[in-house]
Amino acid sequence: VTSASVRVAVDLLGGDNPPEAVADAAVRALSADPSLAVVLVGPSDVAEAAAARRSPDVAADRVATIPASEVVAMTDDPVRAVRAKRHASVRVAARLLRDGAADAMVTVGSTGAAVASAVFALGRLRGMSRPALAVVVPALEHPVVLLDVGAGAEASAGVLGQFAVAGATFARVRLGVAAPRVGLLSIGAEAGKGDALRRAAASAVAAAISDLPAVFVGNVEGGDVALGGPADVVVTDGFTGNVLLKGIEGTYRLVTGSIERAVAGGAERTGFADALAAGHRPLRPERFGGGVLLGVDGVVVVGHGSSGGSAVTACVRLAAEAARGGVPAGVADAIEALVQRRAETRLPTAAR
Amino acid sequence: VTSASVRVAVDLLGGDNPPEAVADAAVRALSADPSLAVVLVGPSDVAEAAAARRSPDVAADRVATIPASEVVAMTDDPVRAVRAKRHASVRVAARLLRDGAADAMVTVGSTGAAVASAVFALGRLRGMSRPALAVVVPALEHPVVLLDVGAGAEASAGVLGQFAVAGATFARVRLGVAAPRVGLLSIGAEAGKGDALRRAAASAVAAAISDLPAVFVGNVEGGDVALGGPADVVVTDGFTGNVLLKGIEGTYRLVTGSIERAVAGGAERTGFADALAAGHRPLRPERFGGGVLLGVDGVVVVGHGSSGGSAVTACVRLAAEAARGGVPAGVADAIEALVQRRAETRLPTAAR
Repeated sequence: VTSASVRVAVDLLGGDNPPEAVADAAVRALSADPSLAVVLVGPSDVAEAAAARRSPDVAADRVATIPASEVVAMTDDPVRAVRAKRHASVRVAARLLRDGAADAMVTVGSTGAAVASAVFALGRLRGMSRPALAVVVPALEHPVVLLDVGAGAEASAGVLGQFAVAGATFARVRLGVAAPRVGLLSIGAEAGKGDALRRAAASAVAAAISDLPAVFVGNVEGGDVALGGPADVVVTDGFTGNVLLKGIEGTYRLVTGSIERAVAGGAERTGFADALAAGHRPLRPERFGGGVLLGVDGVVVVGHGSSGGSAVTACVRLAAEAARGGVPAGVADAIEALVQRRAETRLPTAAR
Repeated sequence: VTSASVRVAVDLLGGDNPPEAVADAAVRALSADPSLAVVLVGPSDVAEAAAARRSPDVAADRVATIPASEVVAMTDDPVRAVRAKRHASVRVAARLLRDGAADAMVTVGSTGAAVASAVFALGRLRGMSRPALAVVVPALEHPVVLLDVGAGAEASAGVLGQFAVAGATFARVRLGVAAPRVGLLSIGAEAGKGDALRRAAASAVAAAISDLPAVFVGNVEGGDVALGGPADVVVTDGFTGNVLLKGIEGTYRLVTGSIERAVAGGAERTGFADALAAGHRPLRPERFGGGVLLGVDGVVVVGHGSSGGSAVTACVRLAAEAARGGVPAGVADAIEALVQRRAETRLPTAAR
């Protein structure tokens, strides 16, 4: 695995689909990107068979395999399971990143296991109390970065401020938005609307991003994540973000499913199918790709457990782009600047 | 207003649309339901002009008007504003309910003002620490009752148990589900997934509904509200519920909007328009109608501030159906039974 500029370690285990499907989808990403390599982490026989099935245009040294047979199940307590299972595939993949044998990793297993493995192996960035999982939602007006969508379940006002810094930096690096508009997810656009956490977080978020090329736009609502408009980055705790993301994804399936079913069941010309055939297709949940874990020292992409082939391929592509774009370094710099500023602000106060 | 079996008071002020539009939409609900009357609460000239514009098949005594000129704005602190403005239209409407001059009320103004007015004028049901706003989401598999969608912003485990009792009773009365399946909204279906509130609430919800004709199905996720499947009733705090509901509504608009725009902008036959013309239309946010405030002693329906004509008409219909179905009495009985059971359980403990 030397001729490629980016090497992505792919955890074959822990998702809802068989490791064969994950491995084949990872290998499929290679055809579109000649400077990409993958490292398949999982049962040797599965990994090697998938490597052998690669397209003829893909050189053999672009698919490596690393054996790992232990798995963290969705039902396991993630921190405990990752601690106990030294050879869990997700943990082996994170160690490859730590040791420089890969530049990014992808897992479609338990989010909790991915977070625990990343924190154990790679460490948190200084200034980030906890990592956040960020997704790019293809909203109507423009893409929206939503974070945290489930790396953790709780957050404080200070943590939401850190998420804002990480999310704004991610939007700049990944989407090329020069000065992202950052909104705080709440239940009314007016200042002061929301629960106690949101009322405390508004000033914390504004202060945290005040030195960045970014603008705090105040409260935004659930619909603003689906539609875009007021904010490029929407900050929330992992519980609320996860519920919202799954609600948006479920609605895509509902609406597209019900239109397709209605048309399929009718006698009239399949008008909607025509629109689809002409390339006008509603966005699919797969387009969300995976989430990028911000706040750890490496590129970790987490896909849905139910990720099918095209979603895994999209996750590998996303991981390669995040590594090339220097996402962790960008976030580290922005968070480090926040830490420094806090320290400087505190000194005169203590000297008074 | 004597020939009708149900009288719905409609607050004309506080929404995003002019009071004329709200009044006309309320009056339009009368044609479809001969035993319905409305009481328009707002500026006299607006109310009387709308009454005069009623359809010729609607008798004059089915539209009453009650003057009220003060308004609670979306930007006001709702509790303070409702306290200060004795003649606010939303408060006047709630007093009509209290005094027996109306059987239900509808407002498309501030949710907080509706909750405060209802609690002041009607009182909370014994055993309900706070009211919850419940909506029926037209999910793919079956309708799903989601509560709280924003009557409050915080909740405890015990409060979520009360919401479960109210929601299960509402699903039985309103949707005719004999033994509703009740789920707790979280970020993973497995027991123990979620934040501290959810981990504490699972047993509280199970215990609260254990004497009802209802089944606790454990944790459900955001997508289960859009798609249905595991639960008929999904219980959450008002912050999370509001964010999720607005995310689902925004996605409807995104998906239907983007298909329509794509088809309109293309040169090919407008296939999707054909499907629409044939009656196969994706569900619209308007179909959600309004939310019903559970836990106060009266039928209070809260619509979106942005509710257009058809949504206001749907809210009036919903209010009439909830009044005829005896929603508050059903919820009161179920909650009272919970209070009684708690008291009985406590007595032996105290005597030990």
